[in-house]
Amino acid sequence: TSNDLMQTVTLIPGDGIGPEISTAVMKIFEAAKAPIRWEERNVTAIKGPGGRWMIPPDAKESMDRSKIGLKGPLKTPIAAGHPSMNLLLRKTFDLYANVRPCVSIEGYKTPYTDVNLVTIRENTEGEYSGIEHVIVDGVVQSIKLITENASRRIAEYAFEYARNNQRSSVTAVHKANIMRMSDGLFLRKCREVAENYKDVKFTEMYLDTVCLNMVQDPTQFDVLVMPNLYGDILSDLCAGLIGGLGVTPSGNIGANGVAIFESVHGTAPDIAGLDLANPTALLLSAVMMLRHMGLHDYGNKIQTACFDTIRDKKVLTKDLGGNSKCSEFTADICRRVQDLD
Amino acid sequence: TSNDLMQTVTLIPGDGIGPEISTAVMKIFEAAKAPIRWEERNVTAIKGPGGRWMIPPDAKESMDRSKIGLKGPLKTPIAAGHPSMNLLLRKTFDLYANVRPCVSIEGYKTPYTDVNLVTIRENTEGEYSGIEHVIVDGVVQSIKLITENASRRIAEYAFEYARNNQRSSVTAVHKANIMRMSDGLFLRKCREVAENYKDVKFTEMYLDTVCLNMVQDPTQFDVLVMPNLYGDILSDLCAGLIGGLGVTPSGNIGANGVAIFESVHGTAPDIAGLDLANPTALLLSAVMMLRHMGLHDYGNKIQTACFDTIRDKKVLTKDLGGNSKCSEFTADICRRVQDLD
Ligand SMILES: CC(C)[C@H](C(=O)O)[C@@H](O)C(=O)O
Ligand SMILES: CC(C)[C@H](C(=O)O)[C@@H](O)C(=O)O
Repeated sequence: TSNDLMQTVTLIPGDGIGPEISTAVMKIFEAAKAPIRWEERNVTAIKGPGGRWMIPPDAKESMDRSKIGLKGPLKTPIAAGHPSMNLLLRKTFDLYANVRPCVSIEGYKTPYTDVNLVTIRENTEGEYSGIEHVIVDGVVQSIKLITENASRRIAEYAFEYARNNQRSSVTAVHKANIMRMSDGLFLRKCREVAENYKDVKFTEMYLDTVCLNMVQDPTQFDVLVMPNLYGDILSDLCAGLIGGLGVTPSGNIGANGVAIFESVHGTAPDIAGLDLANPTALLLSAVMMLRHMGLHDYGNKIQTACFDTIRDKKVLTKDLGGNSKCSEFTADICRRVQDLD
Repeated sequence: TSNDLMQTVTLIPGDGIGPEISTAVMKIFEAAKAPIRWEERNVTAIKGPGGRWMIPPDAKESMDRSKIGLKGPLKTPIAAGHPSMNLLLRKTFDLYANVRPCVSIEGYKTPYTDVNLVTIRENTEGEYSGIEHVIVDGVVQSIKLITENASRRIAEYAFEYARNNQRSSVTAVHKANIMRMSDGLFLRKCREVAENYKDVKFTEMYLDTVCLNMVQDPTQFDVLVMPNLYGDILSDLCAGLIGGLGVTPSGNIGANGVAIFESVHGTAPDIAGLDLANPTALLLSAVMMLRHMGLHDYGNKIQTACFDTIRDKKVLTKDLGGNSKCSEFTADICRRVQDLD
């Protein structure tokens, strides 16, 4: 694997603890000799022609070339009318699938063991259409938009994912008993696509039932696919089951290989710059990225080293229950990565 | 308390195991000498003038007189266009607040202990408006409707509930970062109402964050108030934390004292008629009902007896981990209720 061609990745370090955890990831990649060249870019929304918010041209150009991004946390803009940077990135690159594998981490105690599921969230429409109106004073409507194309696309993604990742079932999550037309359309597309994947078991379940069953026994779930808002909720719920956003990776996938992988936790301004942050979520997102790029060996090696460090419990950051610095935790992973060679 | 005036309650036994668990509740009420006269009514939706679905007139009349209902599970109608009976009841009697106390039951093991929270769900609008359209082929919209009046009403209910039930905080659950106008309106009303309840702490939290925090540490929550769909999800999630729908009570509250209390589990057709059902959810809903009617002593007595039976572990139905019949479980509670006199 040592003569793999170098590939470029756009790195958006982000705010708060973003730069520290990005540095940690770069160090571990270096130790693993992963054939990645980082192209660092900052993103702060700017106003383009016609007053539309857009991401800075040099970040956009880098992503257009590299197709692959790794992103730390971005602080929520406070200015009125300023868009969420996360939403803007999803939109700019049409990242239609948000993928979050939630796998119990050995040695990190939570009320659950053996969680091993993946939430796949439609990332472009639904309740996130942004279309809202005041009908009369005191009466507001928000529009949830569901399209055949986006529903088919996300269903296909979910089944492909299941097939390519040796997962045996896909569950469509919906409220088609209430939103008969919109969730009904989503569900119908899932059923249609399921017909083409006879090797993957297909089930459907109401969102409320999924939530109830999830906290009672998450091991019954495998791949879950759902409209935007339901995915927002379930992906966070499932992250909670395995220890929270500090250890949960996330990928936003678009067409033609374009993808941005990101840690979904906050910027933790209170500990920023103090070498106390936990880089696990960003690192595991970077592992997802390596697999997405076909660099499975590097991904596996880094993941093994990271989980070994956590299981070993000797060098852990504070949020993981230890008292080591981010740099010490990182060094421990680097050492293990090198030992694995 | 023995010369309390008899009050009438409309009893809707429901389908499947409904009649058995209703009988269990009536037996326990009799043992407790609760001053309740039951007026039994069946509900199956019928088509009224103009083809509108309605509940049968004799059930409607009974509820109009008694104002209070107790309801077992109803089977989901299969006929196309046939409405959910639950939705029809909420609508007919304008039951605008769904209240679900989720309290850990001693002796019934789940991954969590010390859960003690209440979800209060707006029950009349939001994503349940039923307004949907096909815009063009393959593009569907569903309308989420949020009104100032319904938002204020549910917020007021939540704060009144907190105050009257010695609860110290109310959390408004929303996605106003995404649905700025609709959830924004809901949130604004919560904030306004909070101003009038300085004795109750008010916080606001994103739905996704609530889900994540909920599965990590549910003890941080007290009263939660939210729009319709979020309540559907969270109330089931929270039921899961304490052992599921078999042990979770529920009340639907309207104006002027009107209310229907119900078990929210299914009809369990596989065990119907076999004397195997667990009446706990319906019984605890009936306890909520007694408190709603001001009959706290009876409510407390019955709840104590029920929890004692569960904690004692000797006479439990199958789903609770025992091998007793519904009638044996019921008899054990009756005996304890009488001993408490
Ligand atoms: C930041 C916010 C816009 C976002 C969302 O609601 O989608 C977040 O919760 C997420 O899941 O990425
Ligand atoms: C039966 C269904 C219409 C209902 C809902 O979605 O509200 C149920 O889930 C509930 O919570 O009562």
